[in-house]
Amino acid sequence: MKLAVTGKGGTGKTTIAGLLARFFADDGFRVLAVDADPDANLASAIGLPEDQARAIVPISQRRRLIKERTGAQPGRPGQMFKVNPTVSDIADAYAVDHRGIKLLVMGGIQTGGAGCACPENTLLRNLLSEIILNRDEVVIVDMEAGIEHLGRATSRAIDLMIIVVEPGSRSLDTAETIMRLAREIGVSSFGIVGNKIRNEEEKRWLEARFPGDKILGMVSDRDIIRESDLNRIALADRLDDDLRKEFGAIYRACKSARPAR
Amino acid sequence: MKLAVTGKGGTGKTTIAGLLARFFADDGFRVLAVDADPDANLASAIGLPEDQARAIVPISQRRRLIKERTGAQPGRPGQMFKVNPTVSDIADAYAVDHRGIKLLVMGGIQTGGAGCACPENTLLRNLLSEIILNRDEVVIVDMEAGIEHLGRATSRAIDLMIIVVEPGSRSLDTAETIMRLAREIGVSSFGIVGNKIRNEEEKRWLEARFPGDKILGMVSDRDIIRESDLNRIALADRLDDDLRKEFGAIYRACKSARPAR
Repeated sequence: MKLAVTGKGGTGKTTIAGLLARFFADDGFRVLAVDADPDANLASAIGLPEDQARAIVPISQRRRLIKERTGAQPGRPGQMFKVNPTVSDIADAYAVDHRGIKLLVMGGIQTGGAGCACPENTLLRNLLSEIILNRDEVVIVDMEAGIEHLGRATSRAIDLMIIVVEPGSRSLDTAETIMRLAREIGVSSFGIVGNKIRNEEEKRWLEARFPGDKILGMVSDRDIIRESDLNRIALADRLDDDLRKEFGAIYRACKSARPAR
Repeated sequence: MKLAVTGKGGTGKTTIAGLLARFFADDGFRVLAVDADPDANLASAIGLPEDQARAIVPISQRRRLIKERTGAQPGRPGQMFKVNPTVSDIADAYAVDHRGIKLLVMGGIQTGGAGCACPENTLLRNLLSEIILNRDEVVIVDMEAGIEHLGRATSRAIDLMIIVVEPGSRSLDTAETIMRLAREIGVSSFGIVGNKIRNEEEKRWLEARFPGDKILGMVSDRDIIRESDLNRIALADRLDDDLRKEFGAIYRACKSARPAR
């Protein structure tokens, strides 16, 4: 099963991706969690200790690997390079393990308006495609809101694109842009997770903006979430019954999403 | 005066940048506001009506302009292109005006680990440098947390890099990464704006993490901020006395930052 988690920065997308990875792993699934957002920290969200998280070098910064696979030096203009580098061994070689989760930190893939055809982006794009198309684990990708770089074959292989939304028009605008782009590139299935919900009014505000069958669930704005961030404790390591119930419902909704294939 | 506003996604960085632009403009300064973050919406934050904001095409998506200036087609690998395209006319030609502010929407500049040398990135990087080095207005740039692409000459011309932080370790980690990168590339002056402060405890948590003379001010987490986002009203158009006071102090602290030159 292939899940992509996206949404505006700051909505709690990485927290949701990390919790999902932990719920799948605790349920006995083999999980590959992919951090493809340079502004996120999926390592901390799955509960990897800070020193180990800080030691990880993203694939986007591995100049020797990029050179070896593409034949071109990163950051130098006008070179020819392989547009189909070998990538199938990278996830296993560079992932770190934590509580049944393999974590691969990729770094960001440039999207821009026009698409950027440089060696490092080509490697990262190929790697992400290979993971989504060919891995047999539960794959959870924490992605930036810019998803234009996903090719059609890759997009069709995503079983569920989860868009995290908080009550607010900026977050909603980003969600709408993502849905439009996702349809254009062939993503067939979406789900919305409402996050940081303070009250019934905010819940209804969100419910009014998406079809009911697209809402996977909502997570309340609780002090425990803010405190776990302040104290650098993964939320997955200190869930209380209320959050476990809210998030368990989201987990089950994701798990039962129909595979696209 | 050249101000760069940065911080983790979701901290309210764009709201702060938009308010600053409005305060400077209302105070009689000529202002050029630059949106260099594809996940932000500086147009809305300065109060541009939604239909006008949506109609703006970012420079990063202007394929004809990119081709004309760099000599190369965006998104096609292995082409040679001009590394010093003419950019000095672009801000005036493509900015939109609102309440004494010129707004230029650039789109994102790829940073990655290795740096991406494609035509569109080269154009955007040159444009941002030219604006920071040569414009004579108050320039306020809303930037992504990735700032590695700023060259040393450009970095030194930034009078103040404002980092927006909310109480939380993720936002703090991003701020620390930004400060480290900024020093490496030659930015001499920083200031911290604390945002979404709920109580005295959170205020002290932030104060304990930065030198006192680096804290420009703090903005309380008020319902009016959340409501203005929900109702698509620029915060600048509905400031109450409390927020005007909090934000006025930040504005004055920014204004009195010593020019770097």
